[in-house]
Amino acid sequence: MKTISVNLPGRSYPIYIGTELLGNAKLFEPHIRNKKVLVVTNSTIEPLYARPVVDAISSVADVDTFVIPDGEIHKNLDTISLIFDHMIGTACDRNTTVVALGGGVVGDISGFVAACYQRGVPFIQIPTTLLAQVDSSVGGKTGVNHKLGKNMIGAFYQPQCVIADTNTLNSLPDRELKAGLAEIIKYGAIRDAAFFSWLESEIGSLLDRNPESLAHAIERSCQNKSEVVEEDEREAGMRAILNFGHTFGHAIETWLGYETWLHGEAVAAGMVIAADLSAKLDLLDQTESNRIKQLIEKTGLPTRPPTGMKSKDFLELMKLDKKVQSGKMRLILLTKIGKAVISSEFSHAELEHVLNSSTAD
Amino acid sequence: MKTISVNLPGRSYPIYIGTELLGNAKLFEPHIRNKKVLVVTNSTIEPLYARPVVDAISSVADVDTFVIPDGEIHKNLDTISLIFDHMIGTACDRNTTVVALGGGVVGDISGFVAACYQRGVPFIQIPTTLLAQVDSSVGGKTGVNHKLGKNMIGAFYQPQCVIADTNTLNSLPDRELKAGLAEIIKYGAIRDAAFFSWLESEIGSLLDRNPESLAHAIERSCQNKSEVVEEDEREAGMRAILNFGHTFGHAIETWLGYETWLHGEAVAAGMVIAADLSAKLDLLDQTESNRIKQLIEKTGLPTRPPTGMKSKDFLELMKLDKKVQSGKMRLILLTKIGKAVISSEFSHAELEHVLNSSTAD
Repeated sequence: MKTISVNLPGRSYPIYIGTELLGNAKLFEPHIRNKKVLVVTNSTIEPLYARPVVDAISSVADVDTFVIPDGEIHKNLDTISLIFDHMIGTACDRNTTVVALGGGVVGDISGFVAACYQRGVPFIQIPTTLLAQVDSSVGGKTGVNHKLGKNMIGAFYQPQCVIADTNTLNSLPDRELKAGLAEIIKYGAIRDAAFFSWLESEIGSLLDRNPESLAHAIERSCQNKSEVVEEDEREAGMRAILNFGHTFGHAIETWLGYETWLHGEAVAAGMVIAADLSAKLDLLDQTESNRIKQLIEKTGLPTRPPTGMKSKDFLELMKLDKKVQSGKMRLILLTKIGKAVISSEFSHAELEHVLNSSTAD
Repeated sequence: MKTISVNLPGRSYPIYIGTELLGNAKLFEPHIRNKKVLVVTNSTIEPLYARPVVDAISSVADVDTFVIPDGEIHKNLDTISLIFDHMIGTACDRNTTVVALGGGVVGDISGFVAACYQRGVPFIQIPTTLLAQVDSSVGGKTGVNHKLGKNMIGAFYQPQCVIADTNTLNSLPDRELKAGLAEIIKYGAIRDAAFFSWLESEIGSLLDRNPESLAHAIERSCQNKSEVVEEDEREAGMRAILNFGHTFGHAIETWLGYETWLHGEAVAAGMVIAADLSAKLDLLDQTESNRIKQLIEKTGLPTRPPTGMKSKDFLELMKLDKKVQSGKMRLILLTKIGKAVISSEFSHAELEHVLNSSTAD
């Protein structure tokens, strides 16, 4: 088992990464106060992984389970309200620990519940998708969607610990595994050249779900993300580099109506565009831009926007992105593999040129 | 104008206390980012005080107003949802400042909205009741009620600044003024003997709403509360002394169904019981216990529980209080005027004896 420490003032916590962790009572015990636990999970994950978690926790605490329906459509205040009803109805107090067992949606919902129930109760995250293990489990972003916007309501709230069991990835569909790899490639691209090279040579082994390779990829991703978050917890500055590829990716997701493509797939195509733009602006060597595209291709992720999406679609949708502040568009670009910058130093013509090439038939 | 600084790591803020502050644009300007402001107020306060606030802010920012209905009954997730709808519909972004103009309910609701909108936007509090000025404006407690419990859903969230204009107290009904004075007396009782003596001599002037006396009482109260909160923001320990009189007070409020008596009235009677118990246990001199009762009496606040409420009513209701942890009842008691302790060192018989005397006809 590997352990990473996320160091935030007064709220540091460990991330445990390895196999056979779900059923390990010793991991839970030091993080559970007052011996009362509510496991929140969804209807897909519950039959797969709830049993070992509940058994492990019940050896050290009273444990109850609340199952929410699967799907991003349920990530809203109504679901939050249902969980509050259950917690109050079962006399959960301010020392009850909330455990999130599931992917990013379960984590976001449960984390927000933990942040708000009696103004904050202890929280443990058990991410069961690769994306959640490398992304949503680090950084403390919790929350729900509003009918007019994603993640509009939420809180920054840190867990007591994160338990990333690579065994849970065995049940993950191939497409979701690849979508998680897109975020992993991102960490290499923005701040870890050695990790990027390792990914280039080990991508086959990751796609084969080799547990050691997956554990290493998760470890390096969490380490990179935690270093960024430690510097800038509330995204006042450099935390924005974690959005590499995301402004283009969000435009793709919005254009597709948040269906058809997974988030990681949209981000993958977005990273290729961002690397292209970086090369076009002579910030990045063309050979390095090509390496990014090749690794994404080798992973089996899209390197181009969806068919039919045009340059003008990007330009219109990017104007509405919430990362665009006071009308000035800032993008995350690369100066080399392993080094990202936040820049608004590009002309509309340069951006349009790159978008035209990437959307050309 | 007096200024108190509440010093919390990374989130310090000033409290401005004085007259004619509502219309003072210079107070707002340094605390408003990005020039967009939403004033949240209620239907009672809006016609009285919104005009000067909106005028002052509009000289430095774009300002919009959202009016919620008056009353604790609206302090729930539905009202929160309505405000979110309005904010998203008017394109409020993560730099929009939320200004709470009103009493404790408006402050609690608006603060929770500010804590959760896009995971936190800047927040300014303008408390317009004495209770809100000395209590809810310091300490960062925000939140709403659940149908099964008060303040069950919320966050700790600190404002950019608090503006306490004593002019707003001129429209306050006498009973509410007195209810605010109950919390002021509490600060003297638990940690400020000199302030308690000052209150004994100045209570007439406070009841006459002398602005200088009120400003001094608010200043000392906020100073005391902020010192407690600075030591223990999340109520892990000594912050509990702020609950002096409150466990008994909550029992009274619950017994009355949260109608008839104001919170401050219930707390006043609760402080007399807590002082009686402290004397009964030989922690506190009987003469000091008498001084507390006399000051509460002079203020025109109740010194006894409501007629018909019995010792057994208290004992039953206190068991359900959320401050009772793991079945062990802890109360805030006094060792002298100006010195509170958290104690579970009393027998059931001693508690019952004191409750019997205070509820005897």
